[in-house]
Amino acid sequence: MENEKKEKTNKVMILGGDGFCGWPTSLHLSNHGYDVVIVDNLSRRNIDNELEAGSLTPIQPMGVRLRVWKEHTGKQIGFYNSNIAKEYETLLQVIQRERPDVIVHFAEQRSAPYSMKSPRHKRYTVDNNLNATHNVLCAIVESGLDIHLVHLGTMGVYGYGTAGMKIPEGYLDIEVPTETGERIHQQILYPANPGSIYHMTKTQDQLFFYYYNKNDGVRITDLHQGIVWGTNIPETMQDERLINRFDYDGDYGTVLNRFLMQAAVGYPLTVHGTGGQTRAFIHIRDTVRCIQLAIENPPEQGDRVMIFNQMTETHRIRDLAQLVSELTGAPIAYVPDPRNEAAENDLHVKNELFLSKGLNPTTLQDGLLEEVIEIAKRYADRADLSKIPATSTWTKHQQPGIPTLEQPMRA
Amino acid sequence: MENEKKEKTNKVMILGGDGFCGWPTSLHLSNHGYDVVIVDNLSRRNIDNELEAGSLTPIQPMGVRLRVWKEHTGKQIGFYNSNIAKEYETLLQVIQRERPDVIVHFAEQRSAPYSMKSPRHKRYTVDNNLNATHNVLCAIVESGLDIHLVHLGTMGVYGYGTAGMKIPEGYLDIEVPTETGERIHQQILYPANPGSIYHMTKTQDQLFFYYYNKNDGVRITDLHQGIVWGTNIPETMQDERLINRFDYDGDYGTVLNRFLMQAAVGYPLTVHGTGGQTRAFIHIRDTVRCIQLAIENPPEQGDRVMIFNQMTETHRIRDLAQLVSELTGAPIAYVPDPRNEAAENDLHVKNELFLSKGLNPTTLQDGLLEEVIEIAKRYADRADLSKIPATSTWTKHQQPGIPTLEQPMRA
Repeated sequence: MENEKKEKTNKVMILGGDGFCGWPTSLHLSNHGYDVVIVDNLSRRNIDNELEAGSLTPIQPMGVRLRVWKEHTGKQIGFYNSNIAKEYETLLQVIQRERPDVIVHFAEQRSAPYSMKSPRHKRYTVDNNLNATHNVLCAIVESGLDIHLVHLGTMGVYGYGTAGMKIPEGYLDIEVPTETGERIHQQILYPANPGSIYHMTKTQDQLFFYYYNKNDGVRITDLHQGIVWGTNIPETMQDERLINRFDYDGDYGTVLNRFLMQAAVGYPLTVHGTGGQTRAFIHIRDTVRCIQLAIENPPEQGDRVMIFNQMTETHRIRDLAQLVSELTGAPIAYVPDPRNEAAENDLHVKNELFLSKGLNPTTLQDGLLEEVIEIAKRYADRADLSKIPATSTWTKHQQPGIPTLEQPMRA
Repeated sequence: MENEKKEKTNKVMILGGDGFCGWPTSLHLSNHGYDVVIVDNLSRRNIDNELEAGSLTPIQPMGVRLRVWKEHTGKQIGFYNSNIAKEYETLLQVIQRERPDVIVHFAEQRSAPYSMKSPRHKRYTVDNNLNATHNVLCAIVESGLDIHLVHLGTMGVYGYGTAGMKIPEGYLDIEVPTETGERIHQQILYPANPGSIYHMTKTQDQLFFYYYNKNDGVRITDLHQGIVWGTNIPETMQDERLINRFDYDGDYGTVLNRFLMQAAVGYPLTVHGTGGQTRAFIHIRDTVRCIQLAIENPPEQGDRVMIFNQMTETHRIRDLAQLVSELTGAPIAYVPDPRNEAAENDLHVKNELFLSKGLNPTTLQDGLLEEVIEIAKRYADRADLSKIPATSTWTKHQQPGIPTLEQPMRA
């Protein structure tokens, strides 16, 4: 039965397959019998050049990665170097030539702080992310192929004020009181409340999906992902040259990985504001499993956009800092919050859909925190500590998240 | 008191000031004491070239328009030929130099059928409209000026299925039933339900506004306009060289103007589908008054995005055809609906906000239908009748709205 499913959806095109989620997803799917083709313009590596902050881990060029993967497994992954936001005709031709059953779309600028750095970064994020997503949809329709689109969205589309309610998976049941005293029941797309330019583009993506699904019947799965932690999956550990990227800088480093790296290199754990922000998390191993589950459980023709919350647990940031501090002895530094956000929030999230499809969540208790610290220690000499603080601010009134002598630290 | 208001907001920059709504708005505001500067890349005239379908009325080049206006009134209107979606640095420099109190933003591709013509047209509409709106917001923040942004949106953001409810002005009161049996009361942005790529970009604009208002405190008024009819206002009638454009082609001609023009030139009134679609309408004279009212009633610093429904009446399309047919004797031709939409819908719309600010609506009963027929007759020899049918279709399953011998006609 599982083989039947795979036979039906065996060619997968991965847009953004060189990135932090895209690369392990490509290897995971290749290893699980899918015929994988990557399209990527290496923009994430180019941004490393711009920020003068590379991956802590020594990631190899795409040519080396694909050659080593073939040497180890005999499996060939295709690769097109192309910018899907700007090179529509190439994208269309690649789709027509490869005829994928599924397109997994990671090809967006994915850092909220980077999207807030300057007008140029705001404009790049909007122009890149919106044209990328629209070009994919437009090309799927123009190709005439019945391709299932799987998109990496973010939990951030919901905003972080949930008024004590559990965040549903994409759609909200509401009642509208009418003038005659009746109540109209409806299910609507959860009202968007983006917290950055990056998050805003993801809420705008949802409207692309809503429209192309309604007008053209495109089958779409949108994954509202939490903050990813960890760096490797079994496939990227087969050879050091297959290693996944590890971002530790103030723009691309995500909070839990950043704490673990800070502890490993002897830098205080920088908590923004009170650390009262509650966020949703998922390990990179579960990310790649969720993508596979999404591919193997596609919406049928005529279904609306299918939305999954791709997260496994929620934590308050200061509790995470405390946990890492207890594990490692690293001190905590409370620094200004560079974001324009509430100091404290609760977050309760439903994730029944992936659990019902068979996801067995990896949690912080599973011993993988130590693995991340190990990785960070192994490559500590590659780190530029000056890149750790968060220097991008949300408005001119916000201050960067840089520790100073005056700021309280505690073990 | 009114003078005080005007002194506070006397410089108005009009993005898209060469277009169908932009030009009369520019003259109306100039005539009412505002210092007007237009930014336009003449894209609408260039699309005339592409479609081989010009304005029925003989519109003059911008240089002539501005010279004649100055000759008649002594008032100077500034003009920059620039593409705000692509030339961000120019836009920013113009804002810094002119220091407008208000920016009125018409600078988007505004035809739903044009946005559906081909992948190229879809992609142009998305790229142009979204980058244009984002660039304006980004430049306002970068300029550091407290500029009130007035944007022309569309009633189409609401969709046309209102379940018997009156469409509110932008925001919807909802109740969310919780698991504990309580109901959470909230006011949300009305759930978007766009009917074309063009309309989709306007729903995405709303998220730009929501975010920039929340994060940067930009003061924004979004006008959800109905279908505009009529062509002239008193200012454009002062000299034939000031005349406004009149679109009659299948892409840019809007339904009531199209019926009146068809009647004037002896072409059957082409009704799409059953004509059971109900739409909201506003006369161009009220459009320019509403813009002025929006300028003179700005949101305060800290207010959320202010949303007005800019329409004065609703009509079913087949009733409009009947009205024009009775007025002129023109036959009605029922043709396929090229759009992917419900055959019949009701539409009830609130417009209390503009009425409360002093709008005295111009209606179909005010004798202006004949004025439009007059204009159409006067310039009938300029018409290319082959451009009248709607040839853009929403999907490959839709048929163009072209009358054939088989289709029933009635007087």
